[in-house]
Amino acid sequence: MDKPNGIRYACLIEYDGTPYVGFQIQENGRSVQAEIEKSLARMAKLPKGERIQVHGSGRTDSGVHALGQVIHFDYPAYLEPDVFVRAMNTLMDRSIRMLEARVVTEDFHVRYLAKEREYLYRIDTSRYSDPFKRLYTLHHPYSLNIDHMQSALNDLIGTHDFTSFCSSKTDKENLERTLYVARVERDFENQEVLIRLRGNGFLYNMVRIIVGTLLQIGNGRKPVDEFRRLLQVKDRDEGGPTAPPHGLYLLKVYYDQELFLESEADE
Amino acid sequence: MDKPNGIRYACLIEYDGTPYVGFQIQENGRSVQAEIEKSLARMAKLPKGERIQVHGSGRTDSGVHALGQVIHFDYPAYLEPDVFVRAMNTLMDRSIRMLEARVVTEDFHVRYLAKEREYLYRIDTSRYSDPFKRLYTLHHPYSLNIDHMQSALNDLIGTHDFTSFCSSKTDKENLERTLYVARVERDFENQEVLIRLRGNGFLYNMVRIIVGTLLQIGNGRKPVDEFRRLLQVKDRDEGGPTAPPHGLYLLKVYYDQELFLESEADE
Repeated sequence: MDKPNGIRYACLIEYDGTPYVGFQIQENGRSVQAEIEKSLARMAKLPKGERIQVHGSGRTDSGVHALGQVIHFDYPAYLEPDVFVRAMNTLMDRSIRMLEARVVTEDFHVRYLAKEREYLYRIDTSRYSDPFKRLYTLHHPYSLNIDHMQSALNDLIGTHDFTSFCSSKTDKENLERTLYVARVERDFENQEVLIRLRGNGFLYNMVRIIVGTLLQIGNGRKPVDEFRRLLQVKDRDEGGPTAPPHGLYLLKVYYDQELFLESEADE
Repeated sequence: MDKPNGIRYACLIEYDGTPYVGFQIQENGRSVQAEIEKSLARMAKLPKGERIQVHGSGRTDSGVHALGQVIHFDYPAYLEPDVFVRAMNTLMDRSIRMLEARVVTEDFHVRYLAKEREYLYRIDTSRYSDPFKRLYTLHHPYSLNIDHMQSALNDLIGTHDFTSFCSSKTDKENLERTLYVARVERDFENQEVLIRLRGNGFLYNMVRIIVGTLLQIGNGRKPVDEFRRLLQVKDRDEGGPTAPPHGLYLLKVYYDQELFLESEADE
């Protein structure tokens, strides 16, 4: 591991993914990572062309939101975490908010050390799409049997080969993952259906393929034991559609110890 | 009054004002009115260049939202109101939603017959701006004395000359209006301060100037009796700043009889 160039900070951030091509820097548009790096470079008054590299706990795709993304980077000087947070929130675009910062040891790595991740998927069940939720939920005005959906989700809990739930674009070899929480519920206003998944890792598009299939189960177009079948056949072509990105939120990343005081998703 | 060219419909609509230059058609960008007229013309299969003119209960400025705007127009044929609503929600951009439609008599006019209007102003009081509320609230992280604000608002209730609260751009002669409700409260999550104003009419920018001044009162930068003073001096230059548009919502328009089953803002 490279020697860090300064003080290593871990930060809890949230963002509205709408204006971004995703978390990670890409050539084809604005990324969350680039926006944060730009603000860090300004804050540190770096010479043009130099950067402070930001590492994320994981990528989020274009349009995917985060309520509890964790990042780390090495900053050239020590700043009080509160001062750091205030300065960054002044500099960054308001689609990104830094909730908390803390100094970590130089061997801390936000991706390698992540133990579990938790995602939320929001579904707007209004008859007609709510204008104020159109960028933040999937609109799905068809009837959903929540009991059937929960029964199906129970089959996913535990350790399984999730090949049927993985984008064929992946190049990963080990497709076994463990899910600890898989829950569906209506929100208190009965306008949304909320799906939470927590596991030790997620394959590319895994949450969105689970949600896409789960909606077919909830509609009755697929049987309640569909997930059990998909876990057995291990074939992506058998799985349901990939639900769109704008209903998806990275809710929380878990480490051996709780890193932050603020916490969006405690069980 | 012109003879209507068909069936007169009154509709309850809501919209996210972010992508629009305002409700009313203007040369410099997209308007809510133009978006609705475009969808009506498509639905009625009008020849190119013909339009079905939409009347709104009142204008909303660029960035101002509506949860209960009311419109009317004359449609060339009769359609079941539910069918009408479904078709329009399929055609219109998802930033606009039609909540309800009903057939009204040909002498109904959405603006001339409006008796009262109610507005909501949302203030995000988080320390750092919430990314998911940045387009839907004013961010104001300073301490606010809600009791002082409510005391001040009480002075506005009743019939007054609101010259001090009217944009100098107005050409109206009678600046007397009556306020029936003027209330401030924290939301149940204690993340927002919500201001509601209901009256028989509002001058141009009146709600936003009241809110801008009210924030100064809540901060302690202006005394609690500031509104009383402003009502007396009748001078726009003495009033506080105009609060930005994106915290403002047209909540409800009242007529002699309740027009719609759905209702966002019953007292």
